[in-house]
Parts: sequence; C-alpha cells; structure tokens
Amino acid sequence: MKKLVIVGGGGAGLTAALAAKKTASDLDITIIGCEEFSYSPCALPFVLGKEIDGFDKIATRFSDICKANKITFIQEEAVSIDEKKKTLRTKSREVPFDSLIISTGGYAVIPPIKGANLQNIYTLYRISDVEKINNAVKGAKTAVVVGGGAIGIEGAAALKHLGLKVTLVEGLEYVLCRFFGTDFLDVIENKIKSEGIDIVKGKNIEEILGDKKVRAVRVAGTEIPADLVIMATGVRSSIKLVEGTGIEVAGAIKVDERLETNIKGIYAAGDCSVTKSPLTGKYTPSLLGTTAVREGNIAGINAAGGNAIFEGVLNAMVVKIFDLEVGRVGFTEKDAAAEGIEVVVGKAKTFTKAEYFPGAKPIEVKLLFNAANEQLIGAEVIGEGGVVGKIDVLALAVSKKLSVGELTKLEYCYTPPLAPSHNGIVQAAENAHRKIMRLKERAKRTS
Amino acid sequence: MKKLVIVGGGGAGLTAALAAKKTASDLDITIIGCEEFSYSPCALPFVLGKEIDGFDKIATRFSDICKANKITFIQEEAVSIDEKKKTLRTKSREVPFDSLIISTGGYAVIPPIKGANLQNIYTLYRISDVEKINNAVKGAKTAVVVGGGAIGIEGAAALKHLGLKVTLVEGLEYVLCRFFGTDFLDVIENKIKSEGIDIVKGKNIEEILGDKKVRAVRVAGTEIPADLVIMATGVRSSIKLVEGTGIEVAGAIKVDERLETNIKGIYAAGDCSVTKSPLTGKYTPSLLGTTAVREGNIAGINAAGGNAIFEGVLNAMVVKIFDLEVGRVGFTEKDAAAEGIEVVVGKAKTFTKAEYFPGAKPIEVKLLFNAANEQLIGAEVIGEGGVVGKIDVLALAVSKKLSVGELTKLEYCYTPPLAPSHNGIVQAAENAHRKIMRLKERAKRTS
Repeated sequence: MKKLVIVGGGGAGLTAALAAKKTASDLDITIIGCEEFSYSPCALPFVLGKEIDGFDKIATRFSDICKANKITFIQEEAVSIDEKKKTLRTKSREVPFDSLIISTGGYAVIPPIKGANLQNIYTLYRISDVEKINNAVKGAKTAVVVGGGAIGIEGAAALKHLGLKVTLVEGLEYVLCRFFGTDFLDVIENKIKSEGIDIVKGKNIEEILGDKKVRAVRVAGTEIPADLVIMATGVRSSIKLVEGTGIEVAGAIKVDERLETNIKGIYAAGDCSVTKSPLTGKYTPSLLGTTAVREGNIAGINAAGGNAIFEGVLNAMVVKIFDLEVGRVGFTEKDAAAEGIEVVVGKAKTFTKAEYFPGAKPIEVKLLFNAANEQLIGAEVIGEGGVVGKIDVLALAVSKKLSVGELTKLEYCYTPPLAPSHNGIVQAAENAHRKIMRLKERAKRTS
Repeated sequence: MKKLVIVGGGGAGLTAALAAKKTASDLDITIIGCEEFSYSPCALPFVLGKEIDGFDKIATRFSDICKANKITFIQEEAVSIDEKKKTLRTKSREVPFDSLIISTGGYAVIPPIKGANLQNIYTLYRISDVEKINNAVKGAKTAVVVGGGAIGIEGAAALKHLGLKVTLVEGLEYVLCRFFGTDFLDVIENKIKSEGIDIVKGKNIEEILGDKKVRAVRVAGTEIPADLVIMATGVRSSIKLVEGTGIEVAGAIKVDERLETNIKGIYAAGDCSVTKSPLTGKYTPSLLGTTAVREGNIAGINAAGGNAIFEGVLNAMVVKIFDLEVGRVGFTEKDAAAEGIEVVVGKAKTFTKAEYFPGAKPIEVKLLFNAANEQLIGAEVIGEGGVVGKIDVLALAVSKKLSVGELTKLEYCYTPPLAPSHNGIVQAAENAHRKIMRLKERAKRTS
C-alpha cells in the first residue's frame, strides 16, 4: 500500500487528504500537524466580534475528521525531511512516504517596531489569539489595529462592534492598497470612517508606548491611545521544514503546475507555497483560503497518482465591510502599469435587484481591459449585495481571457426581486467598448 | 441623415434605440408603438401582490424617455410594412426608413376552454390586466391560476399574499416542467404547497363554470371554486405586422446571427423573433426579458451600421418562489435525451455563506455534462440565496463549453459572511468528474 504523508492540516492539507482519498481509495494517508482543531483563520475576526457564537462553531477536532475519513493523524511537529530516504522526522519518530505534501501554512508577522513586545499586543491568526484579545477587551476602551488588509479591517470592525474606540493604521497610502484602484479605495475608506473607525495612513508607526502594557501608538509624532493593539501586519509562508533540503524556495516553496516541488514526489500547497500568475507568468504570492483549497485539491490528486494541472491564481477575493461588499480579481490599474500594459476601464453603476424593487441597493462594476488585445485582465465590484456572484463570473471571464466584445454579450438571469434586467458587467463592458472604439477611430484619423 | 424606425418600445425596442444612438449618434430614430408606458411585464405579479407599491414605480412615460434621448415617438399602431418601398404604415401616415427593427413583442394566449369568456378571467401580461385583477380581488375568496410557468407561480403567490385561497393548475406533469429535472421540480412544488397553494397537475381543464361571472374551474371531474381566474397559459409572438410581407416566420420572425430577417435592412428582436440555440443549432423560442434586452442591443448596433453577432440564447433564468430561488440554464436531462445526448449529472449541497456563519442557508447545484465530450451543457441551482450569481457563472461556463475538468478548477471568492470556502459549482463538478472517471474505467475493463 502506497503511503502519502501530508504535513499540516489546514485548508490545503485537509483538502489534499480528501482529494487523494477519492483519487486512490487504497492509499495509506497520514497527516502530521500540531494543531488540535481544523478551522478557517478567516472566521476569527467574526468570532472576535461575536457575530459567530464561539469557537466550537468554526472548529472541528482534527482527530475526528481523520477518523471519519480513515486517515492517520499524528499530532506532532514535523521537524525535517530526508528527500533521499523519503522519510519525514517528527520529534519522536521517522515516518516513511512514497509521496509527500507540504502544507505547513503561514504565520503572522510582527514588524520590528520599538515597543512591540509590550503586553496587550496581539496578532489575529489563531484561535489562541482571539482568546487573548477577548481577555484584553474586558475593561479596554481604545484599540489600534495595525495593517489595513482584510484581517485588519475585519478585526477593527470586530473591536468597534465590541464598543471600543478603534483606529486603523496603514503605512501605505490606502487600506487594501494592493487590491483596488484609488477610486474604489476612496469608497471603501469612506465606509470604514462612516462606521466610526478612524483611519491613519501613509505613515509608519514610530513606537508603541507603554509601561509593561501598551498605552498608545505613536504615528508621525501623534500618540493614538490604545489599551490593546492588533498587529494585522501580514502573513509569511512557514518554510522552516524545508531548510537544509534541496527543495527550492523563493520566500515560499516553489511548485510547478502540478504543484510538485523540484523534488519528484514532494508537493506543496497553500500558504507555504507559491505558483505562477496566469497573467504575468511570474511567481506571485496568494495567501487566500480559496487558493489553499484549490491547490490542496490538485496536490492531493497528483500525490495520489492522478494528473491535474493548476492554472494559477487571479486572487479573486471579497471582503465584507459592515454592509458593504467589496470584491476584486486579476490586475488593478497599478498592476497593469507595472507590467507595461495600457488599460481601458469600463464602469457601470446598477442595482442588486430591479431598480424599482423594494430593497434594491447600489452596486458598481469596474472592468479593466488590455487596450492592445481588448482582453479582460481585472475587475473590481463594490455593492451592498450580490458582489460574490459578480466576482465569480469575472474570475472565470479573466481566466478564459474574454474580450470586451464577448462581455457585452454575456448571458445572465433576471427577475425583479433578485436581479435587474440590465446586467452591471455587461454595462461596464459596453462602457469600455465605446471607449475602445473611440480610441481606434482616433488612431485611424491620426495615422 | 439615415432613418431607423423601430416598431414597439418594450425591452427589445427601447434597448435597440439606445444602442443605435450610441453606435451612430447622427441617426434619425423613430419608435412607433401603442403603449403609453415603458415597463417590464416581469414586474407585474409583484405589483399585483403589492410587493411593489404601484405602477408609477415600474412604468416610465414613453414620450419622456424618447424626449430625453432625442428619439421621435409616434404613439400609433404600425399596420403594414412595404419592404420594397422601405416604408412603414400606421393608420394615419407612411413612415420611410433606411433600416427597420421589428420588436412587436408578444401577447398572452388563452386556450379555447369552454367558459373562458366568463367575467373575472384575466391574463397577467399588461398593466391593464393588473388593474382588472385588483378590482376582482376585492370581495373574492378563491382563485385559480392556470399555467405553472414563472408568471403563473408568481401570480399565484401574489394572490395568496392578498389573502385568497389559491389553486395552481398545470396540464403537464410538473409546474416549470420545461426548465428543471424532476428532482428539482419536486423541491419546487413542495415549496409552493408548503406556502399554502394547492397544485393540481397532469390534468387539463374541462370547463370554466359560472353564470356571467366565473364560479369554479372543473379539472378531471372535480370543481375547484374560483371567484377569479388568472390564465397564465403562455405568450405567443406578435407577428401580425409581417403578414403579407416576404419576411420569413416560423411562429416568430426568423432572424440570422446579426438579427437581420431574410430582408436586408429589416431586423427583429425580442419576443416577436426567434434565433437558433447554440446547443442545438435549431430555432428555439426564448420569451425572456434578458433575451429581449440582449437582442435589442445587437439589433440596434447592426441597424445603425455596426456589426455585432448574437451567439444565441441558453435560456438562463431565475424565479423567486417565496424565499426559495430557483435558477437554470441550458439543457435539462429531458432536453439532452431529446437530442440523443447521454449526460452525467453532478450534484452538491452547500451553503450561501460559511456553514457556521449565522444566517447560512442551503443551496444545491446540479450540473449536466455531455458524457461523450465532458462539456457542461446545462445546470440547475436551488437555494435560499445566491442563486443568481451561480447561474450567471454557469451561463458563461455553458456558453464557453467548459469541461468538467475546467469546472473542478474554477477560481471563486470566499469570506465567511458571504460565501463558503468550498464552492458548490466546483463540488458538483467534482462529483460528476468522479462519475465520469468510473465510467471510463468500466469501459476500459469491458473493452
């Protein structure tokens, strides 16, 4: 019986195990990992904000899942890989494998700021983090959240929900800076501020102040009071396990389109690995839960003897910011500029249902086309509903390289209580199409 | 200045006028039609059920729209076309055209049932119908709705909402019979019944009984009491205008992929016309509002001198049945069987958000693949939310002939409050993929 060993049981590892089982039912599968529970880190801000009522709602005991699926679970830390002998070492034993999947995930990073070692400073990445923050919230009045990514924004919203005065600090010129154009970022930041969260941005933290416990955060000379601080300053790939092996890394474990590393029979998936962007052909990090699941699936199939190709990640994502849904996929204007691609942007404002139907809410679609070949290369959607469906359509459209002409002719469904008769994606494509036509006419006239 | 004349100002005609204007801003556009208002007939059941508060919410005065867009509006009935002279006649005048778009829409049909001429029997297709039904509802206690299509179901729900005891009568073996497989139809009918609407099906109406006013409907020997009856028994294309011309019809006006009729310069769009299905290559009726809008757009561009191709209709649609959303696109099992195509079905039950998130509701995805080439040819989705987005993705997937393998690797977005980490379309594709793999192995073993 062939042996598959998987290191780490997060989204990637667990999905890989189940996919491998379905691919080769006689495979002997072992998961090795330290965590007692399986859960999505994305759920943690909502547990903190008490939108989700307790950890038992999001966490399943790992041993139970493995038992139900006839997978061996060893709750120990994996220490080293011997790729020649094809064995994995934990502290107490050596585990042989025919194929190995590394899905060790990532870890939250705290930048080297003076005072970062004070009490009441937390990351928000594991269940234990939420437990600690929960304790600190009792009696706290003010909080600073450092880092304006999805977890930072959701963490700030959670603390606000718990009654604290919250300031969100972002070193770059905008929160969610990497993921949207400035037009949409203005809308996003206005929403956050309108809900009573202060934003301080474009400035780095000089020092975290306090005596034992944090008291304030100093940004560009100004002290922001803080009884507690959440450092949502990013996640890095956990790749300590592959140190000293021949497995190639570039910040994360490099894998090919079968998610195999440079060592035959050793695969990697999820936050610890990196694949090439289908838009640029370059290694591009994606620390999304969906990427972990999608990669886990492919790695599981291949490690079990199947053959599946991973086409890469467009970083399709959605974040709920109070009642606003913001989603995106592919390139932003800035990404395109960095690749030297001239873009034509199409926009449309429409509604979540027929405009006249009670409860209809605004939604805005923005599409980015490569001016040279008229292909869709990116999209952003903001609205008070219906954003997930639009991003899922646009992720498929980008991945299939749809042209602006094809998007103007998209088929879609309609009924007044659920969707308008004119589709926002189609209207945004029409807007871009007219711009492209005008550009072509102008080029014709001047040539 | 070239003259474009459009007959009929519904979804197709109005969209065509605006698209033509954008294509050639110097075009002289005239719309000829009898209706005073522009509105979506799909909204009428919701006005009847008072979910939408009055007609002024859904209707815009036609003359106002035309004035705002510099379009001439002649509120008269078009009587005949002289395709040689390139003129259109109304009762009072002859209007010359360079190009013509026929978008005369459809009309509600009442089958020749004995007693169908009694008082308090209505169709539900125009604003005037709703006004009449509204009057009849006063003092009424019971109603029968004949026809289990979308309008029939929505009409029945509206009357139920107004406090009447409602029976829905469908001659075929299921309501919405043409659009879903029997597995999903059972769910749909159970929902309708659980909301207190009786369904009588698989039996034809023998007679409508009453003395002047309707009193009951007799179906297979049983009398169903009815103070009023809605006949939602279908819509036929309005093609009287083209009688006596050389324009080819097949129940509706036949058009090519540019939506031009067999007469050069004369186009047709919307309910009055018929195009070929991209799945079968055969003329296939589609009486959807989305089709009218999509066709109007293409016809408008082409009639204004542009060149756009219509790829056909997959009949993507969604219906809201109380809190249940039911959507579909492409082939059903029955459609595939009629074309001699063997299908493999994949199914997955999932949730509208992360399973553990408060308010997560069930959603089920069903995918139909052609067993021979593994391409997606149809899909059905039922859920208490999120169905529109899934159908829109699947409409694109069917139109781009995606394979089961491609669908297992779909990129999508995720955040616990809005969407689960495992996507229902991907899971249903995985389910079908495993079935296809097993079929292949079996074929290998027996060959």
